[in-house]
Amino acid sequence: MISNSAKEELRSIVGADWFFDSPNDLLAYSYDATPLYQSLPDGVVMPANTEEVAGILKICSRYKIKIVPRGSGTNLSAGTVPIEGGLVLVLTRMNQLQEIDQENLTATFQPGLITSDLHQAVERVGLFYPPDPGSMRISTLGGNVAECSGGMRGLKYGVTKDYIMGLEAVLPNGEILRTGGKNAKDVAGYDLTKLLVGAEGTLAVVTGITAKLLPLPESKRTMVAYYRNLTDAARSVQSIIANRIIPATLEFLDQETMRVVEDYAHCGLPLDMAAMLLIEQDGPASVVEQDCAKIQELCLKEGAVEVRLAADQTEASQLMTARRASLSALARLRPTTILEDATVPRAHLAEMVEQINRIAQKYGVHICTFGHAGDGNLHPTCMTDVRDKQEIHRVEKAFEEIFYAALDLGGTITGEHGVGMAKAPYLELRVGKTGMDVMKGIKTAFDPDHLLNPGKLFAKETRRRVVVGNHGGCSHPEHKLA
Amino acid sequence: MISNSAKEELRSIVGADWFFDSPNDLLAYSYDATPLYQSLPDGVVMPANTEEVAGILKICSRYKIKIVPRGSGTNLSAGTVPIEGGLVLVLTRMNQLQEIDQENLTATFQPGLITSDLHQAVERVGLFYPPDPGSMRISTLGGNVAECSGGMRGLKYGVTKDYIMGLEAVLPNGEILRTGGKNAKDVAGYDLTKLLVGAEGTLAVVTGITAKLLPLPESKRTMVAYYRNLTDAARSVQSIIANRIIPATLEFLDQETMRVVEDYAHCGLPLDMAAMLLIEQDGPASVVEQDCAKIQELCLKEGAVEVRLAADQTEASQLMTARRASLSALARLRPTTILEDATVPRAHLAEMVEQINRIAQKYGVHICTFGHAGDGNLHPTCMTDVRDKQEIHRVEKAFEEIFYAALDLGGTITGEHGVGMAKAPYLELRVGKTGMDVMKGIKTAFDPDHLLNPGKLFAKETRRRVVVGNHGGCSHPEHKLA
Repeated sequence: MISNSAKEELRSIVGADWFFDSPNDLLAYSYDATPLYQSLPDGVVMPANTEEVAGILKICSRYKIKIVPRGSGTNLSAGTVPIEGGLVLVLTRMNQLQEIDQENLTATFQPGLITSDLHQAVERVGLFYPPDPGSMRISTLGGNVAECSGGMRGLKYGVTKDYIMGLEAVLPNGEILRTGGKNAKDVAGYDLTKLLVGAEGTLAVVTGITAKLLPLPESKRTMVAYYRNLTDAARSVQSIIANRIIPATLEFLDQETMRVVEDYAHCGLPLDMAAMLLIEQDGPASVVEQDCAKIQELCLKEGAVEVRLAADQTEASQLMTARRASLSALARLRPTTILEDATVPRAHLAEMVEQINRIAQKYGVHICTFGHAGDGNLHPTCMTDVRDKQEIHRVEKAFEEIFYAALDLGGTITGEHGVGMAKAPYLELRVGKTGMDVMKGIKTAFDPDHLLNPGKLFAKETRRRVVVGNHGGCSHPEHKLA
Repeated sequence: MISNSAKEELRSIVGADWFFDSPNDLLAYSYDATPLYQSLPDGVVMPANTEEVAGILKICSRYKIKIVPRGSGTNLSAGTVPIEGGLVLVLTRMNQLQEIDQENLTATFQPGLITSDLHQAVERVGLFYPPDPGSMRISTLGGNVAECSGGMRGLKYGVTKDYIMGLEAVLPNGEILRTGGKNAKDVAGYDLTKLLVGAEGTLAVVTGITAKLLPLPESKRTMVAYYRNLTDAARSVQSIIANRIIPATLEFLDQETMRVVEDYAHCGLPLDMAAMLLIEQDGPASVVEQDCAKIQELCLKEGAVEVRLAADQTEASQLMTARRASLSALARLRPTTILEDATVPRAHLAEMVEQINRIAQKYGVHICTFGHAGDGNLHPTCMTDVRDKQEIHRVEKAFEEIFYAALDLGGTITGEHGVGMAKAPYLELRVGKTGMDVMKGIKTAFDPDHLLNPGKLFAKETRRRVVVGNHGGCSHPEHKLA
């Protein structure tokens, strides 16, 4: 609940047009891209600048109102669902690209800027911002920072954290913190920048970002390799790395995913193959040619039935689009699609894919797997139906077993989607009680009243499940869960 | 003071041979590589493994004994001086390289491993660990992690933080924390790995490290460019970057440094030049050749008098050795050498060098400047005499003004040497009161009794000076300061 006087104060900060509390408005901010999670907030506010964010947080601190910062809400871990109600703080109005500094190779922007808008702007001047999460056409960079988003270029180029050099952030008490900057090296105190990246909005509200840019690679080639069995594909990945080639992109699709994508995108994928790798290399033209030839040779040696280099940019785009369409294509199959994020050290890739298939069979659930093979970052994706309680229970059990299998292989419960609510019950399995205690200590140091993005990272209950109930009720019956 | 019963307990953990408290032993661990700082500990302990470290920290926690973890003590910020006495925890016995994982491209090792020993071991199998601090032949990797060490390959390859994927660390209460691992992507909770890197041993004692490796670049070329004035050299740096070339190394030496190095190393540096750039590029041979040709062209265009490509590895090594000899060469000039670490965004390089020269003149002190031009990471180095109180006072004032100048240019007080005691009085200037409060909160969350490496990062006094007094007395008069 937000009292009328608190609402009045919030309106006085942002103007009456940018505070919302009608049932429709609350409904619109009751969910994000994560299936099965929904909960109504008590209010929605859309600040125009850092000072307004600071003003809002001061009010919330005084009234003890919980705050859920968000951008486009494309995350897949229920990281922006207002599970304890409170105020949703939407940062999409703060979407300015403030500077591209071509001498220091940095960009400075507000958190509401769309990821692919940054890509386009920097590429126009020959620069490059590598992180490219699947949702990059609608995701905000503030969201990418909160989740430490990855993408298809992670193998060679790393993830969001590797590019964030400085942040402006508002603490729960309304104070403005500035970390890092444009210095290539900076060891002045604890690295608060890297701590805030991936903190999922639980420590501070990011209001400004300075990112490192690279020179745009001179050329790029795309290729596919098709396999009669999984192991050959996984061995190819290992062989490429063992030969000291780090491709920009090294993606994996299993047979099921290939079939569904082909049915959706009609891009000519061979339906009798068990797996495919989609590989991109970028860099100086001569090196790219040489690497691609070597990769082709290695894939064939490891048992690829066919390896094809895209003839031109059109064919390359078509292949990449097919990969990017995986989730959309799979989502057509059944009412509910749960995309997971189990990750293992890359040497265990084949073993992990086999485990996923074994577990899916054991529980009689339909799981397709695709993902970032080079990173060991897999997306086992389950097509199910939230209305079928019994099946959903089996899905929960299957994913729990998948997470345990990943951990057994030295892996992690989430490679790039974040913990949010979806993985909160599993976090202690990964980081141990000692890790949880340290993280709770950090949380309390930043946010003593635990007002920022409550219910995320730290699980309230120990039952591990993918489904959770609602906070409050939804007025639209079709949005109601359970 | 460490009570006899505490000493007995410490001996029971490590064995009587590995606990030391004779005056000579205490003296040996009363200082590090930072001039002007010295303070006697009350005991020295050398554990053999993580369990012993945990046992030691439990004892210290119970008796409230302060702990200063250290490796070789090569840091330049007095980060390992036991300024409040207590127990120096020396990790040099834990020096095993445990694994080079060629499939996942990682190395796992203990903190006492020497940096260049790791370089050699991974290079033997065609892999590459880029961070190369000046002290790499004697520094430990645990120390590199504590300080987030940089080096000459930072421009293209980043610093220690960019390579640390996982840590084992003992918390002040003796619990063992394990963070990260071999996963290329991992967003399970706050990034404790990156938080511990650069925390200068104030949060936990690192006992195990997993680092990312790269394929060893196929070839490398070294070149020098000589300039009649500073501005041309700085403009060349900007021009190289503006042309989207990122060299592996891009170092700067001013005339004074060149003269002193030539006098020391006799490598044929032209003494009438105002500045030189030392440039290395690595990668596929064809790209290296192409980049070097382009760099040569750009340097000449910006006014270089001569640009010379090293003919062979011998000449290349000679040039790199000359650069690496800068500090040793300068240290011969006068009794006390203070190497500083002011860093600015690289576009402000020329301006910063001019400011340093102006300030040195203003205070009548002798400062030479060299450093990592590509990173904007400069090492203004003052040759002085600690016994000359008046001069030391001027040196203090000059460095204070240099730090202010760096901050005015959007720079930082330390690029790669750490805060330790030397920069502690300046930290708030860089991170603000809000930043200090957040860092203190994190410190308290990890170390509620403030036992770990006391007196570092957080200044006890506001006077900004490079000289501090002793804790306790030294038995050897020649080691006594002030």
